[in-house]
Amino acid sequence: MLGTLTSAIGDLGGDLRAIDIVRVDDDAIIRDLTVLASGADHAQTIIGAMHHIDGVDVLEYSDRTFLAHQGGKIAVTLKTPCKTRDDLSMVYTPGVARVCLAIADQPERVRNLTIKRNCVAIVTDGTAVLGLGDIGPEASLPVMEGKAMLFKEFGGVDAFPIAVATKDVDQIVQTVCNIAPVFGGINLEDISAPRCFEIEERLKKLLDIPVFHDDQHGTAVVVMASLLNALRVVGKNFVDVKIVILGVGSAGTAVTKLLLAAGVRDVIGVGRKGIICADTEREADNTARLWYAEHTNPRNICGTLRDALAGADVLIGTSSGGHVTRADIEVMAEKPIVFALANPDPEITPEDAGDKVAVMATGRSDYPNQINNVLGFPGIFRGLLDSGARMVTDEMKLAAAHAIADIVVEEGLHPEYIVPSVFNRKVAPAVAEAVRREAERSGLAHRSIEQVDPLHSSPALALFCRSEVAITRPD
Amino acid sequence: MLGTLTSAIGDLGGDLRAIDIVRVDDDAIIRDLTVLASGADHAQTIIGAMHHIDGVDVLEYSDRTFLAHQGGKIAVTLKTPCKTRDDLSMVYTPGVARVCLAIADQPERVRNLTIKRNCVAIVTDGTAVLGLGDIGPEASLPVMEGKAMLFKEFGGVDAFPIAVATKDVDQIVQTVCNIAPVFGGINLEDISAPRCFEIEERLKKLLDIPVFHDDQHGTAVVVMASLLNALRVVGKNFVDVKIVILGVGSAGTAVTKLLLAAGVRDVIGVGRKGIICADTEREADNTARLWYAEHTNPRNICGTLRDALAGADVLIGTSSGGHVTRADIEVMAEKPIVFALANPDPEITPEDAGDKVAVMATGRSDYPNQINNVLGFPGIFRGLLDSGARMVTDEMKLAAAHAIADIVVEEGLHPEYIVPSVFNRKVAPAVAEAVRREAERSGLAHRSIEQVDPLHSSPALALFCRSEVAITRPD
Repeated sequence: MLGTLTSAIGDLGGDLRAIDIVRVDDDAIIRDLTVLASGADHAQTIIGAMHHIDGVDVLEYSDRTFLAHQGGKIAVTLKTPCKTRDDLSMVYTPGVARVCLAIADQPERVRNLTIKRNCVAIVTDGTAVLGLGDIGPEASLPVMEGKAMLFKEFGGVDAFPIAVATKDVDQIVQTVCNIAPVFGGINLEDISAPRCFEIEERLKKLLDIPVFHDDQHGTAVVVMASLLNALRVVGKNFVDVKIVILGVGSAGTAVTKLLLAAGVRDVIGVGRKGIICADTEREADNTARLWYAEHTNPRNICGTLRDALAGADVLIGTSSGGHVTRADIEVMAEKPIVFALANPDPEITPEDAGDKVAVMATGRSDYPNQINNVLGFPGIFRGLLDSGARMVTDEMKLAAAHAIADIVVEEGLHPEYIVPSVFNRKVAPAVAEAVRREAERSGLAHRSIEQVDPLHSSPALALFCRSEVAITRPD
Repeated sequence: MLGTLTSAIGDLGGDLRAIDIVRVDDDAIIRDLTVLASGADHAQTIIGAMHHIDGVDVLEYSDRTFLAHQGGKIAVTLKTPCKTRDDLSMVYTPGVARVCLAIADQPERVRNLTIKRNCVAIVTDGTAVLGLGDIGPEASLPVMEGKAMLFKEFGGVDAFPIAVATKDVDQIVQTVCNIAPVFGGINLEDISAPRCFEIEERLKKLLDIPVFHDDQHGTAVVVMASLLNALRVVGKNFVDVKIVILGVGSAGTAVTKLLLAAGVRDVIGVGRKGIICADTEREADNTARLWYAEHTNPRNICGTLRDALAGADVLIGTSSGGHVTRADIEVMAEKPIVFALANPDPEITPEDAGDKVAVMATGRSDYPNQINNVLGFPGIFRGLLDSGARMVTDEMKLAAAHAIADIVVEEGLHPEYIVPSVFNRKVAPAVAEAVRREAERSGLAHRSIEQVDPLHSSPALALFCRSEVAITRPD
């Protein structure tokens, strides 16, 4: 019987990894089989076939991805023990009252003496989740929890998902402001354009903690890092190149802004209706689009993607799959650079792009040069929290991009290695240090209390003393 | 030099625990001294004396309670690893998309497949924190983080502090509703009365997750548990006793409501102006006070605390320190029970209460019978989350109270042991089970998907299958 079953699984291409006996009944043996399938459909085919074997009953089955999500992927844990009366008297009553009073006395201390020191809210309304669109706040949570895992794993940041049950801009802004006391930063995530622009702008004005829309600025940082290295590979100068942005949603707009901030002069955006130029956008009621028309396209070209690409050095796609052909690329300048970032299907695959392309990057892990936001946000927020910065500037984003790019230069630049691996552990610390240094350079770093409170200069520390005193003295 | 220093510390009553050399310079030795002091003032005295010793410089000092709070007391951590591409493809893209779609398809799944399964928001506006009053949301955070620690340590619940930067009832209600998708329960905390009543009532109507104001209901549960046992000690019957509640704020009101729900008939409340009776409250504009006047005081007594206490069996104080005298207690019935719960100074101390009192309890850990909310909320929310209950009922609260009381009965009831220790590890599981059973008994338990989805009854599980399949079969 078991032989028939394992053969059936093998015949269908299932990879049988383990067989465990659960229990032996009078008339049956209950076994647990672990089978590796190539995907959900494949697994269903195998399960279907098993059902049809005489004498075999499939009692239950599960899936490791869903099992990994049972009960959530993140936890809230204790950083300090709470096992004894003595512990309790420090972390809760009565000891905690002194810490509360110290913060009430000098509110800035909340940034040192609470989780605000290290905590970021991942805020979404679930309207633009991955490529899935508007699936709502509940269904977005697995992505937000995954993001929180990446924040912790790579940046050591305590991030907590806040999925809001409203799409109203005023409500979202008000809600985030209301819950801001516990957070040291706000990471906006998967909020659809153009609402995301207004939410970000208003929160930046209202809050005294950094607000960062990762779909915009995280993408822009990693694209910038990759572009710095791609241009090194082809030997072109950053300020002289002509760049075409295909897709002027939140990511494309943010990439454009960061390119301009870095000194690029010739950027042309291409939307669904063709090139964004002053003529086409004169009557637009979309302020983001108006901004775009006013700040890009210096040669004032109108027309199609192909018109924009004529003689262009760089194509950055942030649109959707299959929008670019080999013929489009053939009109570009010599040694063209193509970033086709649409996911899961790029604007053009490396195979279709052909040999003319000098450097190619995508958002996918199964091609070389994967441009992935994970390279940015954990280190950026690490640096922001450590410097006590109250905002993110373009200079900080550029510093982060240079830090990412430099890691590749040190390890050996190559057309197929312009951007580090997602799992390169040097990236986040380097990004964090770059952001922290830039915050210090520009006077935006607010050093934390313990760093600026030597005994003799601050009566504040007098409050910091109770049961145990650690004293350092020269003898 | 070191001898002079250690003598000075000892002479002042400091307990020198350790001396560590930090480094040796040309002209000085830098040492780290750990000294146990009896309090903040004592520590300051010691530090002051050290300053005055010739040749000694105090470079820095710190305090273990403040050190324990540096950077916060809680962390957000990963429940499943994220170290490899394979991990990433399960917990983040692309695998996470299937989980998102499964929730979008059947929204109830959010209660199983995300942290909502185990997550509670600790919501405060910082208006009534400990005995400190309105210290604001930032300064309240150390208490809320401490509460989150207790939730995890005793109940295994992932609790996250949400300190809101508004005192407006509408804003608080709206904010909590907006962020509710990620939470499986709401624990309201340290919100001043009477706003806390309205916030709780409105949220209960608006949300499909349990809303529990711990200052009210957590206190009521633990008081009820203690009273059950105190009455056992004195051999009186629950429904026959006369009970006086001194202090009719949020805790006193909730205790009263739970007593009435349990069948107590004679409860009299005493506020700042004396006994709450129909006459005095006829013109009150406070709906909570009106409710109180209408539902208590069946003998319609007016007057002072002493008038209320004449012949009473039980006094429960939820007011503030020193409001009760021995003369007050002398007018009570034989074998009176006195719970003086004001913190840190009880309404009357056990010493002042004298020998007439048969059973005495306080909120303090340095007297017998400490009534502490930690005995309630971790187990109550554990039971609510595990049963999938959408609300908390009086029956669940009473079940929790009986579970707490029964632990003491099993271990040996005594006038000085009517309530378990805060660190009694049997309490939270027993409370959780009692709440879960009551939810099932009353039909309020919503079993989680994995419990009700056998293969043959649910097409839902068909989605749950991809890379690895675990199969159980009879052979």
